[in-house]
Formats: sequence, C-alpha cells, structure tokens
Amino acid sequence: MCRFLAYRGEPIFLDELVCAPAHSLVHQSLHAAEAKTGTNGDGFGIGWYGERREPGIYREVRPAWSDENLRSLCGQVRSGLFFAHVRASTGTSTTRANCHPFAQGRHLFMHNGQIGGYLRIKRRLEALIPDELYERRQGTTDSEALFLVALANGLAEEPVSAMAQTLKQVRRLMDEAQIEEPLRFTAAFTDGENLWAYRWACDGKPPTLYFREEGSNLLVVSEPIDDKTKGWREVPKGCSVVARAGQPVAMYCLNEAMARIAA
Amino acid sequence: MCRFLAYRGEPIFLDELVCAPAHSLVHQSLHAAEAKTGTNGDGFGIGWYGERREPGIYREVRPAWSDENLRSLCGQVRSGLFFAHVRASTGTSTTRANCHPFAQGRHLFMHNGQIGGYLRIKRRLEALIPDELYERRQGTTDSEALFLVALANGLAEEPVSAMAQTLKQVRRLMDEAQIEEPLRFTAAFTDGENLWAYRWACDGKPPTLYFREEGSNLLVVSEPIDDKTKGWREVPKGCSVVARAGQPVAMYCLNEAMARIAA
Amino acid sequence: MCRFLAYRGEPIFLDELVCAPAHSLVHQSLHAAEAKTGTNGDGFGIGWYGERREPGIYREVRPAWSDENLRSLCGQVRSGLFFAHVRASTGTSTTRANCHPFAQGRHLFMHNGQIGGYLRIKRRLEALIPDELYERRQGTTDSEALFLVALANGLAEEPVSAMAQTLKQVRRLMDEAQIEEPLRFTAAFTDGENLWAYRWACDGKPPTLYFREEGSNLLVVSEPIDDKTKGWREVPKGCSVVARAGQPVAMYCLNEAMARIAA
Amino acid sequence: MCRFLAYRGEPIFLDELVCAPAHSLVHQSLHAAEAKTGTNGDGFGIGWYGERREPGIYREVRPAWSDENLRSLCGQVRSGLFFAHVRASTGTSTTRANCHPFAQGRHLFMHNGQIGGYLRIKRRLEALIPDELYERRQGTTDSEALFLVALANGLAEEPVSAMAQTLKQVRRLMDEAQIEEPLRFTAAFTDGENLWAYRWACDGKPPTLYFREEGSNLLVVSEPIDDKTKGWREVPKGCSVVARAGQPVAMYCLNEAMARIAA
Repeated sequence: MCRFLAYRGEPIFLDELVCAPAHSLVHQSLHAAEAKTGTNGDGFGIGWYGERREPGIYREVRPAWSDENLRSLCGQVRSGLFFAHVRASTGTSTTRANCHPFAQGRHLFMHNGQIGGYLRIKRRLEALIPDELYERRQGTTDSEALFLVALANGLAEEPVSAMAQTLKQVRRLMDEAQIEEPLRFTAAFTDGENLWAYRWACDGKPPTLYFREEGSNLLVVSEPIDDKTKGWREVPKGCSVVARAGQPVAMYCLNEAMARIAA
Repeated sequence: MCRFLAYRGEPIFLDELVCAPAHSLVHQSLHAAEAKTGTNGDGFGIGWYGERREPGIYREVRPAWSDENLRSLCGQVRSGLFFAHVRASTGTSTTRANCHPFAQGRHLFMHNGQIGGYLRIKRRLEALIPDELYERRQGTTDSEALFLVALANGLAEEPVSAMAQTLKQVRRLMDEAQIEEPLRFTAAFTDGENLWAYRWACDGKPPTLYFREEGSNLLVVSEPIDDKTKGWREVPKGCSVVARAGQPVAMYCLNEAMARIAA
Repeated sequence: MCRFLAYRGEPIFLDELVCAPAHSLVHQSLHAAEAKTGTNGDGFGIGWYGERREPGIYREVRPAWSDENLRSLCGQVRSGLFFAHVRASTGTSTTRANCHPFAQGRHLFMHNGQIGGYLRIKRRLEALIPDELYERRQGTTDSEALFLVALANGLAEEPVSAMAQTLKQVRRLMDEAQIEEPLRFTAAFTDGENLWAYRWACDGKPPTLYFREEGSNLLVVSEPIDDKTKGWREVPKGCSVVARAGQPVAMYCLNEAMARIAA
Repeated sequence: MCRFLAYRGEPIFLDELVCAPAHSLVHQSLHAAEAKTGTNGDGFGIGWYGERREPGIYREVRPAWSDENLRSLCGQVRSGLFFAHVRASTGTSTTRANCHPFAQGRHLFMHNGQIGGYLRIKRRLEALIPDELYERRQGTTDSEALFLVALANGLAEEPVSAMAQTLKQVRRLMDEAQIEEPLRFTAAFTDGENLWAYRWACDGKPPTLYFREEGSNLLVVSEPIDDKTKGWREVPKGCSVVARAGQPVAMYCLNEAMARIAA
C-alpha cells in the first residue's frame, strides 16, 4: 500500500502540495491516515511536465521525509501537471526502478495496490507485454508490469477500456493460478495533458481515492492532504475519473468497461 | 528518539535478537511501541566483536526493515558482544557517519536521546573534544560529540564517572546558552568485554531502557523484544547498569556520580 | 566488464585479498589494468561461507573504493570460500539486485562479460528459466538470467556441462535474433565446497582469467592482485577450471562439452 | 581533485553542458583528462537558479555517470546560472552533505583542491566560522569550511578580497601547524546574478581552470568540455575571474588582493 497525489491545473510549485500541507504527501510517508500501512518509507518518486514533451522524473530509495533533494526540487519546479508517490513495498525490492511514477515516452503511471500472488503469475503477466515494451521494463514490480500491459492494450488511446481489459487479463491469470488473494488497483495515468485515475478491486476493497476541483485545477489523492471538509470527493469504488483538458471531470464505471470487453 | 539493543553473553547469531523476535529491533524500525516516534527509519547500524580486537561495523542510511544486507549479515555473524541501533533523526542529516553505533578503537557507543538546542552549543561542545579525538569525528551528531567528549573524560577507564562528568559539562553549556529544551540520554558503551548502559535526563524523562539476564547472558534494550512478562527489568531513571565480564550486573546512581564531580 | 576474485582454501580474513594487496579488488574498482573499462564503480558485492550452509551476501550500489562497510566487513569475516566482485555495468541499472555475486540456496555465481544484444533476447532467455526459479529472480541483468538458466540446466549437479548447455542455448537465441555482438563469458560458481570457473567467448575474446594454487589454497581472479611473476597461471580461452575439495585443480574444455550436447 | 562547471548567460537546459558534450562533466566523472585523478566518482551535485531567489540543489553520493535522476533533471531544468560538480574525495566521507555545490541563502560555492593537512587544522579553521554560520555547516569537508569562513569574511560583499583574506588565514593556520602539504584552491562562487572563479595555490600548482565567452554567455570549467581550440582561455594562476551581470569579464590578481590585506 502506497500513497500518491496527482495534480493538473495552473502551474504551481510542487511543494505547495507535496511538502507544505499539514497532511502533505511527505507527511504521509511517515504518517498515512487511511492506509493499511502507516509508513510509506520504501522509496518515492515525482514526475512532472515542464517545457519538454517527456516528463522529468526523480525517484529515490530513501524515505521521502528525510530527502533534502526532494524538498529542494519541489521548491524549484513549477508544473501544471505532476505526479508524486511514496512507496510501501509489497515485496519487491527497494530500488529506484521499482519506485513510482513509471515513465514511458510522454506517459506517466503510478499505482497503489497489489496483484495478489504476483510471483506466481509474474512470468505470464510479463508474457502479455510485447517485445518492444518489455525491453523498456526497468524494474521488477507488478505495478510496472501492469503499466506496460496496459500500454500494449492501448492505454495511450483508450485509457479506460485499455485498463479495464488489463484488469480483466490479470484476473484471468490469477484465476488460472488459483490465487485467492485479491487484485487491488488504485492508480493514475497521464499523457502530459489529460489525467485518468482508477479505483477498482476484485473484492470490493480498493485503496481509497479522493479528488477535489477548484476552478480548472484538479487534485487526485490517496487521502486528503488537508481538512476533509474542504471539498474532497471520494472516487466511488469501481470507477475511473477522467479529466480531459478543458472539460469537466467525468466518471466512468470500470466494471461496465470490463463487461464490454469480449472474453 | 531511536531504538537500540546491546547483548553480551554466549556467542549467538545476531539475527536471534535483531531480526527474529516478534518485536525485534528490525520490527521496531517500523513499529516501535514505547518511543515518541513509532518509526525509526533514518538509518541503522550494527557493531560486533569477532576475532579481532576492534569491532566490525555496518551502518546504512536506508531503513533497517528493507535492508537485505542487514538480514544476511545478521544470519552469518555470531558474536558474544554486539550493539544494534535503528535511528530516528532529531535533526542531523541521514548519513552513514551519523548512524550509531560509533566506534573508536576497540570501543562502541550508541545513544537514544537528544541534547536540547544542540546547534546552539555545538561548537562549544566540540571544543571539549581534544584535537586527537576531534580528527576522528566523522559525522555531525550530538551523539558522536557526546561519545568523544566522554572518551576525553576517561570513558575507557571510568565509564560511569566519565559519563557523569560529560553530562554535567553538557548541562552547563546548555545553561550558559539558556536552553530550555531538556538533555535526555539513554545510551550504551562497551570496550569489547564489559558493557555499560545509562539512563538519565535533566527533566526526569529519559527514554526507556530495560535489561534481562539469563544465566551469564545480558540483553539491554530500549523496549522489550518479546512479551514483557519474560524477565525484563526496567533500568531506573538516573541509573547506570554495569556488566563487567564474570560479575553480576551492578547498578550505579548517575546523579550521585555527578554530585561527586567537582564543579 | 567487471573484475572478480574467488578464493577457496584455509580460512582467511577477506581483507587479505579484497582490500590489502597492492592491486586488490578494491583497488581494481578504481584502476583495473586488463579490463576494457578501467573503472568498475557500478556497485560491488561479496559472498562468503561461514557457519551456515547458505552464504552471506553484502552488495551495494556505491563504488567499492569508498565503502566503509566493505572495509569493516572484510576485516572481520574469515572464510575458507568467498567471492568478491566489482561491477562495470553494460547497461542495466545500478541496483543491489543487479550486483554480483548472485545467491540461490547454497550456491553463488558471478560473471564478467556480456550477452550481446541482451535486450533483444531478454524475454526468450527468461523463458528458459522454470517458474520456481523465475520467482527468485531479483534483478534485471543478463548475468542473473544466465545463472538461473544454468541452474535449470543442472548447474548444481554437472557444473561444466550445464554451463556449456546454457552457453549453447544463449548462442542459439542470439543467432535467431541475428545478433552480431558477441557472447563473452568469464564466470565463477560454487556450491559452498567446490569451485568452478569458466572462460569462454563466441568470438575468441573472453575476458581474462587467472588462478594461483598455493598448497591447497586456490585463488581465481580477473587479473593478478600482485606481481604477475608470482605463480599466476592464465586460464586458457574456452576452458573451465574445476577445483573439487581435496582434489587437484582440473581443466576442462568448454567447447568439447558444448559439442557433446545434442542440438 | 574534482571537476566542475559554472554557466551564466541565456537560460539553457543543463544537459546542453552537463550531459551532452563529448567531454561533458558527466563524461569527466569517469574520464577526466587534466586531473590528477581520472575518476571523479565520489558523489556529485548541481545547483541552479530558477524562479526563486534561492537556488535548487541536487546532490547524490553515487557516481554522476550512472545517475538516472541527474540525466532527467538536466533534461528538464533550464537556467541562466548554474553550477555542476563531480567529486573525487580527498579523504572526507562520501555523503550528500559533503558534495558540492554548497548553498547558503542565495549563494552557491564549489571547490576543486585541498587544504593540505586539513585534519590537523580542522578545528582551528572551524573556529573562524561565526556561530550563526557554524550552525548551518552540514558536512565535514575542508571545502564547506572554506566557504563559511569566506562568508564570514564578507564573501557576499567583496568576493575577491574576502576570498584572498580567507586563503591568507588558512595559510597562517597551516604555517602554525607546520603543515608542508600545499593549499590548492580552484573554486567558483555566485550570488545568483554574478559569477566569480578563483585559481590559486601556495605552491604555484593550482588545479586547471578555463573559461569561454560567447556573446554574453560565460562558461567556466575545470577542463574544456569540447575541442580545446574552440575559444577556451586558461585562467592564469593566481587570478580571479569576475563576471558581473551586464559587464565584460574582468580578471583580478589574488596575490595582490592578499598583499593588500593587513596581517
């Protein structure tokens, strides 16, 4: 279980959200409130869009709470679209390549959750990744594998249905391996302009996810970074939040999207 | 606030105490029970005596709970005298040189506590360290400075009175600087044969310290590593535990020792 | 290209070979003499056998030359069988899990060389690893994959023919992928008692490998750690050195072993 | 001995100078040409000015050549004034706090060189740092101490004479301690607008320093990052280069500045 934050809106310094609030993501690295694990100290990462088409990435294996570089960077970098993530490992080792967000081309992805029994289906999951994407796999996590499978399924073109298909494929692999642990998936994805967030679990217990709109600014978080009364809305279980540039936030049902996909 | 463990007795593998128990030190790095801070993720260290006169040291900046090297080492190293420490920084940076235990020659020292207002007296504290010891200062912590001052005061020869004198000196520096935050000091020291532990605070609130004797084996800990009913004794506030090789554990009053030292 | 050292014989402190000699492995991390790359600063590792059946492992991403922990450990650990390795990455990231030696159960393996065009055959190479071993893959290197494929081929039982078969399989994958870069493979393997070393390349240019026997002590190195006149023998290209406990060192031809394996 | 680079001019992406050139600073971390030590793998750092008055800092203990974060950052950050440094330690440990550049308020400083016999005068050198600056000392290097002493001497107001005075003070401490090793000092300093560089040694052998002007763009480097014929000028020994915003580069004689300072 991890904690994350995604922002799209007027360019702001990252520290306004990542470091400064009372219950900022850096604070959550040490004291998360709504997570199964209160400590998210197994590395962290930020990804942001600046002048270039591809995002910048800073990932480190140390806890976010003690990283001077993170504080300095978040005080310098101003961005209209960024992701931040603090990690609580579910088993894979603490390396930079296993820290979120993951980048491929202009895309960023980050995940909070777990594929139950991952090691038992790891190879079969990786077999769903085409060669040209498999070459770019840098780490060993289930999260990165999910991202690459979803890209192969058309994540860049159809982010909701491609993710629905991916979840369906993973569930089938888990069923075939008779895995009883659940698949839990709360995640965020962006192409540098638009933002998608997902909250789904096969057992009805996906990790929490909230969002807040302030004018055209959208903030998506694992848990509120300030007083809960301040306009936070919970993303319903089984839903995907879609925030296309210049459009109001829309909500899609992932279960319906999964149902539409042919077996 | 940190957590630590010191063992002297029959040679055992370090993992028997550091990794294996239900509430082992590695477990305390993530979930300490009696500490002000439940997470001790700002580095860790072990020091042990083997065949050589000087101890071995392994210190790392990552949290103990995710360090594969620590687990492997503790599974290999068997020692009759070792220290282990998980760190929660009180301000100084997370570097190996700031992790405990600190070694000088054949001596090891580790500390849980804090010199209130340390930065305001740092230079004056360091001025108490003679040149030949100051050269060996590797980090920037108050703990390492305390160790070096105590060595200058004769820690190797008279571990109780030298530490009492050190605490008295530090208190005077704090008074002169009109520092109101307390000096809290729970610590352990060894010369490779004998073991000393200390629990003292100027405000009567030193961090917890327990010990357990099983035959000739002595274990000193910040908090019990297993069920509290199993023979743990709390070190009284203001006391020093002295375990000389081949002798029963003795207890000394640090306040008396401090009173004996001429102003 | 990396540098490594393997020792089997009377138990000695690791620093006698790893740190102390004029051209020790730690020295080679900064100034290798016979390597394509003079600097081997992309992590390092040691593996050694002590009282337990499984070896101890210490691997770090920092250069060996500046690692205080390595120096301290090598000064404490005495072993009759150990491996040490300094890494110069050929492309995969600098993580502990990508550092040598690799351990599986009681076995250790380390490698100096490269599978040309690795990323183009990575998935097919991994497909040769059975599920139960694939679960234990921790990193992303070609070296670890080679080790796991070789274990699947019977490395623990027939270290020479299993490795010959592995090299043959890899060559076939490379041929199928029309890879023109060579496969170069200088490596060492042990089961905790016996030691095997290999030197082979498809283009006749395997990395250097030397050994020296002094009584029952055997030292195998990428390049001599002291004056070359002192009894070093070069392992001929295409050969495997086999040092079974209590037997003189034997030499096998890898090409013949490869020829014996049915296509 | 280290390598560094300082740029002031039109805002550019850092990778144009730090990563891209044939003999870029990242390349010099592995293969410096004009340094006593060819490898500068003991950590690195960048400091840059963006929208805020204080600079951003990214410092890491790993070698620059393998740091993915550095590459990503340098590809995102565009700045009109930045420093970059790759470190070869002269004895102090490899920690972030010991990596250059050092920041104090809006100022940045970096150094290539060494105070001979530093440990023997460390305490007396630190005694020259006033309390309010000593509190901000984070590491243990001679370089950071030089910076803080120079700030105390008025570096922010009179960068040439303050540095001359500092060098003079250090030389006196060295003389008093009868140190025979030299003081060598090649360095750069900035207040976020103007740039100063220094090249001086008590034995006439300061580390190399070059600069190149292209219109209003100024680049100062330990060694040229591309073909030496391309407009590089060597900073003469004993000189300081001063580049005030909107003014042509000026050169001052440090020896004269030292002579002007009363003993």
